[in-house]
Amino acid sequence: MTVEFTLHPNFSDKIFVIDLPLCRVLLENNHYYPWIFLIPRRMHVRHVLDLSAEDRLQCFEEWTLAQMVFLKLFEVDQLNIAALGNKTPQLHLHVIGRRIDDPAWPDSVWEHPGATKPYTDAERQIRVHQLQHAFLNLEK
Amino acid sequence: MTVEFTLHPNFSDKIFVIDLPLCRVLLENNHYYPWIFLIPRRMHVRHVLDLSAEDRLQCFEEWTLAQMVFLKLFEVDQLNIAALGNKTPQLHLHVIGRRIDDPAWPDSVWEHPGATKPYTDAERQIRVHQLQHAFLNLEK
Repeated sequence: MTVEFTLHPNFSDKIFVIDLPLCRVLLENNHYYPWIFLIPRRMHVRHVLDLSAEDRLQCFEEWTLAQMVFLKLFEVDQLNIAALGNKTPQLHLHVIGRRIDDPAWPDSVWEHPGATKPYTDAERQIRVHQLQHAFLNLEK
Repeated sequence: MTVEFTLHPNFSDKIFVIDLPLCRVLLENNHYYPWIFLIPRRMHVRHVLDLSAEDRLQCFEEWTLAQMVFLKLFEVDQLNIAALGNKTPQLHLHVIGRRIDDPAWPDSVWEHPGATKPYTDAERQIRVHQLQHAFLNLEK
C-alpha cells in the first residue's frame, strides 16, 4: 500500500518522528512551537479530497490522535490545525501547539516567519522521543 | 440537542448560509476569496477535541462536504482548511478557496489582512444562494 511514496523536497529539513498507519509524522525544527506535519503516505495527493473515503477517515483519526498527543505532552493554550499546501503541493496536515507567550500569539504562525529558532541536538532528541512515546501509547 | 447554542460576537458580521446537521455555515464578507466557516452548534467547544467522538466524525464529514461544494462551485487552484481559534475561542473550521491570481497567493490569507473587499448586495445574494443550493444537493 505504501510503495512509491516519496516526500516533496520542501520536507527535506523536517525531522522524522514516526510512521502511523497512514501518515508520516515530521517535526518542524523550531524551538518556539511544538509543530508537526502529518503526510499521508500516498502518491499524487494534494487535497484531502484526493484521498479515498477510507484513507480520509484514517487521516482524520490520525490528525485527532496527534492533537491528543499535543494536549498530553505540551502546556498549550490552543491548538492550531490546518492544511494549506499553497507552496508545497503534497497534502500535509499541520498541528501546532500555541501559547499566549509564544512569539506569534495571537496571530497565526504564518504571520511571523521570522520567529524561528532551531532545536539544540539535545532538545530535538528529547522532543522526538517524547512524541514517539506518546503516539505509540495513545495509538494502542 | 442544539438548544443554548449562541455564536461568539466575532461572527456577528458574517453572513448566514445554512445549518447542516451539526454545523452552522457562515460566509466571510470578502469578494477576494470564497471563504466559509463551519461552526458546530454546541456550547463550550473550543477545540476539535472538545467535541464528542460522534460529533467529531460528523464535523469532519461536514468539513469534507464543504470542500466538495467548493470544488463544484468555484474555479480554485487550491483549498485551504484550518481551525485556529486564537482570537475567537469558539470552534470554527475555515474553508477558503484559493487562486494563483488572488491577492494573497501563495501566502496564507492571514498574512494579507488588508486584502478585503465586501461583496456587493447582488454578489452576496448570488454567492449565498449558490452555496445553499450546492450544500442541499450534495448533502443528499
